[in-house]
Amino acid sequence: MVVKKEMGSKVLEVNSELLKEIDFKKGKGLVPVVVQDLNTKEVLMVAYANREALEKTLKSGYAHYYSRSRKELWMKGKTSGNTQKVKKVLIDCDGDTLIYLVEQKGVACHTGNYTCFYRTLAKER
Amino acid sequence: MVVKKEMGSKVLEVNSELLKEIDFKKGKGLVPVVVQDLNTKEVLMVAYANREALEKTLKSGYAHYYSRSRKELWMKGKTSGNTQKVKKVLIDCDGDTLIYLVEQKGVACHTGNYTCFYRTLAKER
Repeated sequence: MVVKKEMGSKVLEVNSELLKEIDFKKGKGLVPVVVQDLNTKEVLMVAYANREALEKTLKSGYAHYYSRSRKELWMKGKTSGNTQKVKKVLIDCDGDTLIYLVEQKGVACHTGNYTCFYRTLAKER
Repeated sequence: MVVKKEMGSKVLEVNSELLKEIDFKKGKGLVPVVVQDLNTKEVLMVAYANREALEKTLKSGYAHYYSRSRKELWMKGKTSGNTQKVKKVLIDCDGDTLIYLVEQKGVACHTGNYTCFYRTLAKER
C-alpha cells in the first residue's frame, strides 16, 4: 500500500514509506542529489542534502541543500534568484541517492552556464 | 575477440588538462559519477570512481567504478553482461563530479529495472 503524507506541503505529495528508506548513514548524514531539468533531462548539478534540507525541499517545493564546505543549509537561488522548483523526487534502489527533477529559473551554475557540466573531459573518437 | 580488441584501443579522446583538474581529494579519493543514457538522457545510476577506475574507463571505453562497500574496482557488467559503453564524459564546474554518457546493454539496475531510479519519493500534486 502506498502511504501518502503531506508533510505540511500543498506542493508535493510525498511517499512516507520511501522517505523512511533513505540511507543518510552511508554518507555520514548526507545523500547526493542529482538535479535534472524536468523538460530536457539535462543534468544541471550534483549537490548534497541532509534530512533537514530534504524536509525543507519537500515542504516548500524549492530545492534546498547542505553545503559541505560552508557546513550549512542553503536554498538554491535564495541570493541569486536562480531557484529550482522541484516537480518530482526520485530515489534509487538502495536509497542512498536522490534525483530532483526541477524547473530551473535562470541558470544552475555559478559560472553563468545553464548546467555545471558544461565541459567535456572525454568523447568518442 | 571483438570486445577485447576494442577495449585495447583508444576509443575515447581525452582532454588531459581537464583530467588534471579532477578533485579526488574532496571525496577522499573518490568522485561521484552520474550515469546517463546517451539517447534518452535518463539517469541510470550513481556510482563512484577513484583515479584507477576512471583511467580504466577512459582506456577501455567501458564504465569502471570503485565499490565503497567491497572496497574494490569493478567493471560494470563484467559478470552480468550489462555493460556500459561510455560515449562521453563530462566534468562539473568545480571538478568534483563526473557524468558518463553511456549506451547501456541490458539494464543498469541489479533489481532488473532499466534505471536504479525507478521509485518516486515525491511528485507535484
